[in-house]
Amino acid sequence: MTKKLGKQTVELKSRPVIAGAYSSVGKKEGEGPLGKYFDTVYKDEFLHKKTWEQAESELLRQTVFGAAANAAVPFIDIDYIFAGDLINQCTSSSFAIKDFGIPFFGIFGACSTIAEGLSLASMMIDGGFAEKTICATSSHFCGAEKQFRFPLEYGSTRTPTSQWTVTGSGAIVLAKDGDGPKITHVTTGKIIDLGVSDANNMGAAMAPAAADTIYTHLKDTGRSADFYDLIITGDLANTGSNLLLSLLNKQDVDISENHRDCGCMIFDAQTQNVKSGGSGCGCCASVFCGYFYKQLLCKKVKNILLVATGALMNPASANQGQTIPSIAHAVAIEG
Amino acid sequence: MTKKLGKQTVELKSRPVIAGAYSSVGKKEGEGPLGKYFDTVYKDEFLHKKTWEQAESELLRQTVFGAAANAAVPFIDIDYIFAGDLINQCTSSSFAIKDFGIPFFGIFGACSTIAEGLSLASMMIDGGFAEKTICATSSHFCGAEKQFRFPLEYGSTRTPTSQWTVTGSGAIVLAKDGDGPKITHVTTGKIIDLGVSDANNMGAAMAPAAADTIYTHLKDTGRSADFYDLIITGDLANTGSNLLLSLLNKQDVDISENHRDCGCMIFDAQTQNVKSGGSGCGCCASVFCGYFYKQLLCKKVKNILLVATGALMNPASANQGQTIPSIAHAVAIEG
Repeated sequence: MTKKLGKQTVELKSRPVIAGAYSSVGKKEGEGPLGKYFDTVYKDEFLHKKTWEQAESELLRQTVFGAAANAAVPFIDIDYIFAGDLINQCTSSSFAIKDFGIPFFGIFGACSTIAEGLSLASMMIDGGFAEKTICATSSHFCGAEKQFRFPLEYGSTRTPTSQWTVTGSGAIVLAKDGDGPKITHVTTGKIIDLGVSDANNMGAAMAPAAADTIYTHLKDTGRSADFYDLIITGDLANTGSNLLLSLLNKQDVDISENHRDCGCMIFDAQTQNVKSGGSGCGCCASVFCGYFYKQLLCKKVKNILLVATGALMNPASANQGQTIPSIAHAVAIEG
Repeated sequence: MTKKLGKQTVELKSRPVIAGAYSSVGKKEGEGPLGKYFDTVYKDEFLHKKTWEQAESELLRQTVFGAAANAAVPFIDIDYIFAGDLINQCTSSSFAIKDFGIPFFGIFGACSTIAEGLSLASMMIDGGFAEKTICATSSHFCGAEKQFRFPLEYGSTRTPTSQWTVTGSGAIVLAKDGDGPKITHVTTGKIIDLGVSDANNMGAAMAPAAADTIYTHLKDTGRSADFYDLIITGDLANTGSNLLLSLLNKQDVDISENHRDCGCMIFDAQTQNVKSGGSGCGCCASVFCGYFYKQLLCKKVKNILLVATGALMNPASANQGQTIPSIAHAVAIEG
């Protein structure tokens, strides 16, 4: 089996291409440091819909349209769409794409969803099952708070390690051929659970999973960390990012120079009152599609390892005192 | 692109093999018509755990162990595990497999999950990315009722079209080589939504998706319905099964002789008070692994089209008056 490198990595010899991408975010995200890079900023958190849940579906729907338009690919040519989100039973995704008529694989990796989608979609293309696919995900601050935490009207105090769910969506068109950044390797995460059970400290829960996947990727590929111009994690935010650097240091891997975290970048933690930083499926997806994809296109960076992390818990598991199993999926991208 | 037949089907020339399978169910399922075929019947709905959610995880965990043992495959040789379930954020799956150390893809297709997993896993094997994979899913009556409907203690009256969520789990080991039934084709469903919004009539919501996938599969492959000894749907139950036959009849496809529905088979609707029949991710999975897989092994049937159906809604979408988007994924199996 020639495509496998080590236990968790595959090499994609055909190098599927990112043919287009699109990002949409809410008002607060638009006011953050990356505001000018996002393709659409919605001022109205309802997107003219009646509920936050319907608003998130509309956000995702419009973002998928944007990605297809950006790649100049007619919908009829899309072989598969991979999508998932944080809302119970991933309904943001199913309602977003229900009228598209595209064969659909629902995926759930919490905030790691965009990398899980890219992993599966690029293997489908490399394996000869598809020529064009779309990967998409989203999150919405109001819908996520209502579902995972408290009614917004309570105005609950937030802990310093907590994260602010991003209202945002990212969608990516992958193609068999063409110009654009290429996906060269996929490293699929295994679940890591070191016993963190504080649902207000997702960064601490997810950092060990990110460290494990990055370390495994480097071992499997024989690359050193400085091969990558950037190693981008999804939403560890400040608390989790510090832990990640420290965990990798213990394994003699230093990514302090080339590490970036979408959860640290999307908001200004000093002025935007987001505590540790941003989170949510839409965080990594919108920052990658809005910012890093364009950095790749204009050749400001060449080699990227995109490592999206997910906390695989729910309110019931947290209330029952369970720990937070976490996962991180990585895709290597060459600009 | 030679692997694609039509818009939604791929042909797997390498024919991944079902190397093993295992089924576990609860007491009520064990008392049903298929009781003697299930590999394990748990009398205690808590499986010695403290909560129903933890019980479902334990059910899934033991079923995965069973499948690996049945296939005589050491865990270390499993390249990927695909799993998902009905509990919010698919925590039954993540807690079940968190200590396995196997690269994990979380999937969500509601009750279509087992077929979605088989689809992705068999393409991964055919594409050269894996030699052995596990696909697993589960559902638990008590956890599902609590989450989707009412507290069990209410003793709510059920409508005639409602379905009874199966306490059950199925897990399948797919391998590149070896003896056993083979997966020859995968037809990936698109979401179909004809406007049914009654959450107590999932069969009616899902039947059009099943009809669409079956019709598309036959068109894509050029096969007629009688090529298959059995066309097995996941959990349309009585209401949905009748609708399926009628929808396909309108397209001049007659599957009245070779259609079976796991939701109709797992309970005796007359004596077990399950209204329209069984449902849940674990319904199709446990009936396939417990009953049909063994029918294939002992050559009582040869060609099967397994069509698992899923209703992609949640309680919030139902309460907000939304319709029920549905999907059906099909895999063709040759014994």
